[in-house]
Amino acid sequence: MLTLRPAEAADAPVILRLIHGLAEYEKAPHEVLATEADIVRDGFGAKPMFHVVLAEWAGAPVGFAFYFFNYSTWHGRPGLYLEDLFVEPPYRGYGIGKALLVHLAQIAVAEGCRRYQWQVLDWNQPAIDFYEAMGASVLKEWLTVRIDGENLARLASTHVHVRPPAGS
Amino acid sequence: MLTLRPAEAADAPVILRLIHGLAEYEKAPHEVLATEADIVRDGFGAKPMFHVVLAEWAGAPVGFAFYFFNYSTWHGRPGLYLEDLFVEPPYRGYGIGKALLVHLAQIAVAEGCRRYQWQVLDWNQPAIDFYEAMGASVLKEWLTVRIDGENLARLASTHVHVRPPAGS
Repeated sequence: MLTLRPAEAADAPVILRLIHGLAEYEKAPHEVLATEADIVRDGFGAKPMFHVVLAEWAGAPVGFAFYFFNYSTWHGRPGLYLEDLFVEPPYRGYGIGKALLVHLAQIAVAEGCRRYQWQVLDWNQPAIDFYEAMGASVLKEWLTVRIDGENLARLASTHVHVRPPAGS
Repeated sequence: MLTLRPAEAADAPVILRLIHGLAEYEKAPHEVLATEADIVRDGFGAKPMFHVVLAEWAGAPVGFAFYFFNYSTWHGRPGLYLEDLFVEPPYRGYGIGKALLVHLAQIAVAEGCRRYQWQVLDWNQPAIDFYEAMGASVLKEWLTVRIDGENLARLASTHVHVRPPAGS
């Protein structure tokens, strides 16, 4: 039987295992730098930066949804952002991923969110079809811009020369 | 002279004016449902859902950056997400927008973020060129999926039939 429950600090090893499982699926197993200490510190302190729902089959964890809240300036309300969704390979195809997606929609509604968002690879047409059948829209015009690592440090140390606006 | 400072609850009317200014620029002036009460409640309570930096020229607000933190499961660290950046039209072209972008990069570094992200329209090549020159990458493969309004309510009330995994 499937149960979905909020993760606790003691689940950090399981969360990290599932993060690694997803990274392996994405063929990037060495990209995961997160540690159990990171998960405990950032997810289970006074101001959690994220939340996790664990999917358990017969009491054993088999998948997770990792999410946090963003904010819509148009709605004046938070939105729910699903960062990671993962079900271990032997447990796929039975509805567990969809149960997690629906469970997060319920959390979004309960928390007063007007939007629920995540990302998909543009070539993953089966996933896009699945999401659209659920009532989701794919925002094809909006691209994500990212700056990280040394480029972020360099930008932070950039001096910007601001000129006086005309008429000021 | 330009000053950049964190907004306070008393700035809610200014923040809302700038949100409306951006919506007009995006030709969607009627999409803004947010009120001053929303801004005060969600931005300036015990657990702020967002942060705002105001750009002031000679003491008068002329632009803003509206941001919040997301989380990278690979890095085990928060990221900074820039939701809105806006400079009022008479004040554009003097470096104020870039000063806001750099200021947020400094906040990202100070908060231990490994990533700084925002979004751009795929046809806005001048903006893409500007961001890439700053060291940013455009993630062309990743598309945003969104579900909102009645579709969100419908998804939340969906019953998912989960079948027993083989071997369980």
